[in-house]
Amino acid sequence: MTEAPKTVTAAVVIIGNEILSGRTKDENMGFLAEALNEAGVQLRECRVVADVEAEIVEAVNGLRARYDYVFTTGGIGPTHDDITADSIAAAFGVAIDYHPEAVRILEQHYARTGAELNEARMRMARIPEGGELVENPVSRAPGFRLDNVFVLAGVPVICQAMFHSLKHQLVGGDPVRSVAIAAYLAEGTMAHGLGAIQERHPAVDIGSYPFYRDGKFGSSIVCRSQDVRELGEVADEVRALMRGLGGSPIEDVNDPG
Amino acid sequence: MTEAPKTVTAAVVIIGNEILSGRTKDENMGFLAEALNEAGVQLRECRVVADVEAEIVEAVNGLRARYDYVFTTGGIGPTHDDITADSIAAAFGVAIDYHPEAVRILEQHYARTGAELNEARMRMARIPEGGELVENPVSRAPGFRLDNVFVLAGVPVICQAMFHSLKHQLVGGDPVRSVAIAAYLAEGTMAHGLGAIQERHPAVDIGSYPFYRDGKFGSSIVCRSQDVRELGEVADEVRALMRGLGGSPIEDVNDPG
Repeated sequence: MTEAPKTVTAAVVIIGNEILSGRTKDENMGFLAEALNEAGVQLRECRVVADVEAEIVEAVNGLRARYDYVFTTGGIGPTHDDITADSIAAAFGVAIDYHPEAVRILEQHYARTGAELNEARMRMARIPEGGELVENPVSRAPGFRLDNVFVLAGVPVICQAMFHSLKHQLVGGDPVRSVAIAAYLAEGTMAHGLGAIQERHPAVDIGSYPFYRDGKFGSSIVCRSQDVRELGEVADEVRALMRGLGGSPIEDVNDPG
Repeated sequence: MTEAPKTVTAAVVIIGNEILSGRTKDENMGFLAEALNEAGVQLRECRVVADVEAEIVEAVNGLRARYDYVFTTGGIGPTHDDITADSIAAAFGVAIDYHPEAVRILEQHYARTGAELNEARMRMARIPEGGELVENPVSRAPGFRLDNVFVLAGVPVICQAMFHSLKHQLVGGDPVRSVAIAAYLAEGTMAHGLGAIQERHPAVDIGSYPFYRDGKFGSSIVCRSQDVRELGEVADEVRALMRGLGGSPIEDVNDPG
């Protein structure tokens, strides 16, 4: 690679007391991690915060200055505990009001379903000034984008659908490629050799993850880089290390990429 | 309740590139959320950060000043990417060295298994000055506690075992009780009435979560409070609201407490 790789970064803010209480197990962080990676965007940090405006504001303002994109999930429904849109308006110091297109979407949707478009449901059409809508093909009430912040629903199927609606807007960097190589060798057995490989290739991220499979202990070595050539070299060195220690390196099929 | 409830809070820092890349789905946040709640400790915030010392230091120092307890998971194994112990030492500004009891535990363990206690494995005995060991009944290499920060393993079964080793040390507050009531009513239908109940009972946390079950849409209303009497009143008001809107309130068996 002759040019320095282009790196685009993101953070995720998961908003919801139900995650912090343990009642609901979050599924959105894992989905966004993978989907962003496919789009050439590297997830660098994630925060889970309560349904408290000051905490949402602090997290979003801290992260939107530091990363190229921020994605929030949760808190954009019709009930009193849905305070994300107001919190984003507060974070940016802008007004919030009914967005004409969002109102039209809700009017059409509720005319079709026959349910009443009451004041609570109309709250879902309130968008901070300057926000652009993100389509929700599942339940219609939209998300929105303000500057580099994307505001998505918390229900996983809706969060995922919204991400697919917006992903063409993302300007990705060079994708991070990964190779995972496993062997039935303990981490402590490989650690010295792995550390030496990492020192020779500081630009490749080499992670070591122990596992227990088919009644045997082993380690999966995950190598990640934007430079495919150097990634191949590192993978070869890892395989050679494993063979030298009496192991049989195998591609780790559990690796999602 | 005549006295103000005693509230004890915590934050969790999940350390690991494998979570941010989407390769590994985190299980520790959900476990700690529930386990802390049972111990009378309220999880208030969670962060997922990369294997980068400066980011670990910033997260831990920000959170240990704000909450009663901080729990970290991940990064305490024998390989070069295991930098949590050094990062905690840096966060507290203390030295790090081999801990005699940790060395003894590792010596006994590797004498028993026959594997070599090499330099890489000995790294797992390095503990920041002042740290007290947290027992690891699974794979022996200990976690540790420094002031109000507990440092645990990232492998879920070890993280959970370490938590059970330390939980008697936690001084909990009054536990948060919860009641979950579901009905086949849309969130937008209940939102106005729910908002009024929340206004009358600001000390009770009322959350509304839509679901799709048995081919029908509904909402689960989760009420959480340290005050059992007021929690019962709120639950009665929620049931009355549901009946008034034509719904049949049912206890939501999906609620883990």
